[in-house]
Amino acid sequence: MDSANIDTVRPAPEAAKTAPKADVKALVTLCDPDMVAVNALITERMQSEVAVIPALAAHLIAAGGKRLRPLLCVAAARLCGTDNTHHYNLSAAVEFIHTATLLHDDVVDSSQLRRGKVAAHLIWGAPSSVLVGDFLFARAFELMVETGSLRALDILSKASAIITQGEVLQLMKAFDLNLTQADYIEIISSKTAALFSAASESGAVAAGASEDRIQALYSYGLNLGLAFQIQDDVLDYQGSAADLGKNAGDDFAEGKSTLPLILAMRASRDTDAAFWDRTIGKREQAPGDFERAQALMASSGALDEARAVARAYAEKARAALSIFDAGPWRQALENLAVYSVDRQT
Amino acid sequence: MDSANIDTVRPAPEAAKTAPKADVKALVTLCDPDMVAVNALITERMQSEVAVIPALAAHLIAAGGKRLRPLLCVAAARLCGTDNTHHYNLSAAVEFIHTATLLHDDVVDSSQLRRGKVAAHLIWGAPSSVLVGDFLFARAFELMVETGSLRALDILSKASAIITQGEVLQLMKAFDLNLTQADYIEIISSKTAALFSAASESGAVAAGASEDRIQALYSYGLNLGLAFQIQDDVLDYQGSAADLGKNAGDDFAEGKSTLPLILAMRASRDTDAAFWDRTIGKREQAPGDFERAQALMASSGALDEARAVARAYAEKARAALSIFDAGPWRQALENLAVYSVDRQT
Repeated sequence: MDSANIDTVRPAPEAAKTAPKADVKALVTLCDPDMVAVNALITERMQSEVAVIPALAAHLIAAGGKRLRPLLCVAAARLCGTDNTHHYNLSAAVEFIHTATLLHDDVVDSSQLRRGKVAAHLIWGAPSSVLVGDFLFARAFELMVETGSLRALDILSKASAIITQGEVLQLMKAFDLNLTQADYIEIISSKTAALFSAASESGAVAAGASEDRIQALYSYGLNLGLAFQIQDDVLDYQGSAADLGKNAGDDFAEGKSTLPLILAMRASRDTDAAFWDRTIGKREQAPGDFERAQALMASSGALDEARAVARAYAEKARAALSIFDAGPWRQALENLAVYSVDRQT
Repeated sequence: MDSANIDTVRPAPEAAKTAPKADVKALVTLCDPDMVAVNALITERMQSEVAVIPALAAHLIAAGGKRLRPLLCVAAARLCGTDNTHHYNLSAAVEFIHTATLLHDDVVDSSQLRRGKVAAHLIWGAPSSVLVGDFLFARAFELMVETGSLRALDILSKASAIITQGEVLQLMKAFDLNLTQADYIEIISSKTAALFSAASESGAVAAGASEDRIQALYSYGLNLGLAFQIQDDVLDYQGSAADLGKNAGDDFAEGKSTLPLILAMRASRDTDAAFWDRTIGKREQAPGDFERAQALMASSGALDEARAVARAYAEKARAALSIFDAGPWRQALENLAVYSVDRQT
C-alpha cells in the first residue's frame, strides 16, 4: 500500500534550508487545484431540499475563513505523494465538522460576529444554527464513509468527541482565577488542535503513507493547532473587531481562561489582584475594564510570553516535518507554521 | 456472508397466525441478555474526564425511556440469526444519536420536561446540552467505526443527516395553517422514522442478512416509526403531562403541525376557522385554547382518523415481516407494531 517512505533517510537537499516565511500564499497556490474540487464538494454536500439549511450554511462557509483545516488535509496527502482523491472528501468533511462547531460555539457563547459577518443564530435563530450544525456534522460522516477508510473515520470520529470535551471543559473553566497554563493547553489541545491534527493525519492516511509519516503529520497538525490557537487568543487582546472579523474582547467578557489572561493574572497578582478578582473571580465587568486588561497584558509581558509559547509550538510543528524530503509542499507547510504565530488577523 | 434467506419461501407455520398483542414485554424479555451488554456499553461510552458530560448524559439516559431504537436493532439482528455482537455497538450508537437529538430538540423547543424529569438544559444550561449532544453524536460514530461495517456507517450517517433535515423542516413549518398530511408524513419520515428504519436495517446488516431481509427490516422500521410518531402526536392532545413524562399541549403551544391538528383544522374549517386562524395562523393563544383544540379534535373525529392512519402504518410494518419464519422474534416485533399505536403513554 505504501512505498512513500523509502526516501525518508536521504540527506535533505539544499532547498530544505530555505528559511521559512510567514506566508500562506505558497500553500494556497499549491493546493488550489485540489481546493477547487474540495470547494465544489463542500457546496454540493451542504445542499438540502430544506432551503434554510444551504442558506445558513452558505452564510458561514461563503464568508470563507482561511480554510486552514482542508488545506492541511490536502497538503498532508500531497506531501505523502497521494495517487488518489480521498483527501477531497476528508477535506470537505473536516471543514463541515469545523463549521458545525462554529455554529454551535456561536450559540453557546451568544457571539455577535463571525468571520466579519453577523453570526448565523442572530439571523436564523439559535434553533436553526443548532440543527444545521448537526446536519453538517452528519454530512461530514457521509463524506468520510464514501472514502471507505475506516482508519480516517476512526481518527475523525475520535477527534470530534475530543473537540466537544474541550469545549465543555472551556465552558466549565470560564471565570476561573486559578486556571493553570497546563489546564489551558489541555483545553486547546482538545478544542482546536485535535481537528488540526486529525486533518493532517487523515490526509496522510488517505495517501496510504507509512506509519512514521502519518505520525509526523499528526504531530505537525497538533503543534500547529496549539500555536494557532494561542496566537488567536493573543489577538483577542491585541486586535480590534475589524481586524479579526469577530469581537476583540469577547474572551475577556466571557471570562475565557486563555493564556494571555493566565499569564497576566500571574504576573500582576500582587499589584492588581483586586482588579482580576472583580472582573474574573466575581464576573463584574465595567466599561474600561477590557482596556485596563489589555494594558496589563502588555506591561506585564504576558502577551510577549504567550507569543513565545506559540512560537515554540510552531517550531515543534516545523521540526516534525524533518523526515520529509525538502520540496515545495514541505516548504509551504513550514511557512504555515511561521504564519500561524506571525499573523495579525 | 449470508445463508439466512434460504428458508424465506417456506409456508409460515402455525405460530405465525397468533394474533399480535399490544405488548412490548415479550420483546424486552427476549432482548434482555443483549440489552444488558448494550446498556453497559452505553454507560461506558458516555464517560468523560469532563464530569458534566456523564452527569448530563446520565440524567437523560438513566431516565430510561423505552430504549425502543436499540431494542429494534437487537431484535433485527437476532431475527436474522446473527452470530456476532456488532449489534451491541450499533444499538448503543443508535441510542446515542437519539439522545443527542433529544438534547438538541429540548434546547430548540425550550422544553420544560423530558422523560418525566426537568429538561437537562434547565439544569446545566443550553450550552452544555448542545455540546453534550455533540459529544454523544461523535461517540456514536466511534462505536460504529469499531464494527468495521462501512454499510452500517453509511446507513446511520445518512439517517443522521435526514433526521436534522426533518427537524429543520418541522421548525420552518410551525404555525402553518396550510400544512398537508403529505407534508406531515415527509417531516415525520425524516425526523422519527429514519432512525427507526436505520436501527432495524443496520441490525440486519450487522447480522450479515440477505438483501431481501435487510430491505424487509428497513421497511418494518420505517412504518413502525411512522405509526409510533403519529400515536405520539395523538397522545399530545389526549394525555396529560403526568402520563407522558412531557408536557401535553406542547405541540399546540409550539404550533407544531401534527396530524391531529391538520385533520382537525380540515374537519372544522367551516365552523371554527377564526379559532385556528388566531391560535395557529396568528400564534395568539390564550388559556382555554388548548382545551378547545382538544374538544374539536375529539368531536371532529380527527383523533380517531389519525389513529386509523397510525394503525395502517403499523399494519404495513407487520406485513413487512412476512418473509421471516414464524417464531418468538417475529412475534415480538409484530406485537411491537400493535403496541406502537395502542399504547397510552
